Amino acid sequence: MSSEHGKRKLTRRQLIGSTLAATGALAAGEAILPGFAAELDAASPAALEEENKVILFQGDSITDAGRNRRHAGPNNPGAMGRGYPFLIGSWLLATKNDPELKVYNRGISGHKVPDLQKRWQKDTIDLKPGILSILVGVNDIWHKLNGRYEGTVADYEKGFNELLEQTRKALPETRIVICEPFVLRCGAVNDKWFPEFDERRAAAKRVAEKAEATWVPFQETFDNAVNDAPAKYWAGDGVHPSMAGHMRMTIAWLRAIRD
Amino acid sequence: MSSEHGKRKLTRRQLIGSTLAATGALAAGEAILPGFAAELDAASPAALEEENKVILFQGDSITDAGRNRRHAGPNNPGAMGRGYPFLIGSWLLATKNDPELKVYNRGISGHKVPDLQKRWQKDTIDLKPGILSILVGVNDIWHKLNGRYEGTVADYEKGFNELLEQTRKALPETRIVICEPFVLRCGAVNDKWFPEFDERRAAAKRVAEKAEATWVPFQETFDNAVNDAPAKYWAGDGVHPSMAGHMRMTIAWLRAIRD
Repeated sequence: MSSEHGKRKLTRRQLIGSTLAATGALAAGEAILPGFAAELDAASPAALEEENKVILFQGDSITDAGRNRRHAGPNNPGAMGRGYPFLIGSWLLATKNDPELKVYNRGISGHKVPDLQKRWQKDTIDLKPGILSILVGVNDIWHKLNGRYEGTVADYEKGFNELLEQTRKALPETRIVICEPFVLRCGAVNDKWFPEFDERRAAAKRVAEKAEATWVPFQETFDNAVNDAPAKYWAGDGVHPSMAGHMRMTIAWLRAIRD
Repeated sequence: MSSEHGKRKLTRRQLIGSTLAATGALAAGEAILPGFAAELDAASPAALEEENKVILFQGDSITDAGRNRRHAGPNNPGAMGRGYPFLIGSWLLATKNDPELKVYNRGISGHKVPDLQKRWQKDTIDLKPGILSILVGVNDIWHKLNGRYEGTVADYEKGFNELLEQTRKALPETRIVICEPFVLRCGAVNDKWFPEFDERRAAAKRVAEKAEATWVPFQETFDNAVNDAPAKYWAGDGVHPSMAGHMRMTIAWLRAIRD
């Protein structure tokens, strides 16, 4: 860990105290469910207490989630889609009470790592996020299984690393959050996806570790969810989460970012 | 209170124990934020433990929230819009883990009480909801201020009472939730709205009491919210809530339904 990165972390931790103080004010004003606001507000990114209050969600269709691309945002419900970026953004805006907090979604359906690379400067670097969340990988294998793409696991890892290096160089202060690619065993997902899909998950984790990024273990989230309801309840086609699935992702993301 | 209604309430209370037991299972499986799932799951409608697991949101544009009316639902993110019905539905589906739970949105932008009356049989009664949530009233005054409608406060109360009587007669077991009409003092909302808007809120509350419905005090929700951030943060035009505003409504609705 670079000393600069370590200093950033320390700053965040030091600021948790003020976050909790703000929670108390919220509980007094709004009389939200006892404990509820406190728990999730404690889970809010302490980095948002710092100067840069821009959160950007990047990825493919799971992130896109039907957003209206004619609206650029920030904080525009149409521009946020109907998935975890909308749910996370709504929660943070409702509990941080901060007019400077700006949430963007730039996920685009069908995109793989090479697609993100092509639009990274305009759609990521130029927005100068304080927190950058990335979920990419399912199309990198899905399109390959469909014969529309040739990229290997090594290509995925290499391109993903390059994206992160470009980001660290341009935005050294940004907190990067890497979301684990995940699938459920139903719909379009069959045995042909394995073991390569697991290898790609492992590659994503190595990328996250190399970049000193926060890791959101979405595969574990859904592996646990199938103990509570059938796989198709969480994602009909095994790839695109239902309303229930997106809310489980929201909870997992907020938990991961708390640390 | 009729003895039949009293019996229904008792049944719900008796079932809270099993709801909390389910919470424990959820916490063990998903390892959600400690306390978070328990708090909101305790806030979930215990009525959902009963046979009829259909939740219907009815109202105007605040409920509609840009839903795609070509999709009927249930549990279809496009059909749910980008407001409190989507947020509440997502939360309940993610925590109840129940494939029989069906959430519908039938709000239509611009609608007043007389508009709901015209489509009540098809859009409400025929769906046979176990929980019916209604938010209507802001257009009844807004369109009057614009010279497009003549209805008085008494007309609003009379028509709203008739809606509820029709509902109780057709669906005696349905839990009815009446949401308080609300405005924020910004955007399109000026002094001309008062005191008539307050009289209409009071009328809605009388309707709720007469129907023995659950009351969701949304005006109080937003009166408290403006202590935390400016009015326009919660609803730019004073009528249609932002992402933050819809999440505050979600929390208020879940709290109200818990009792």
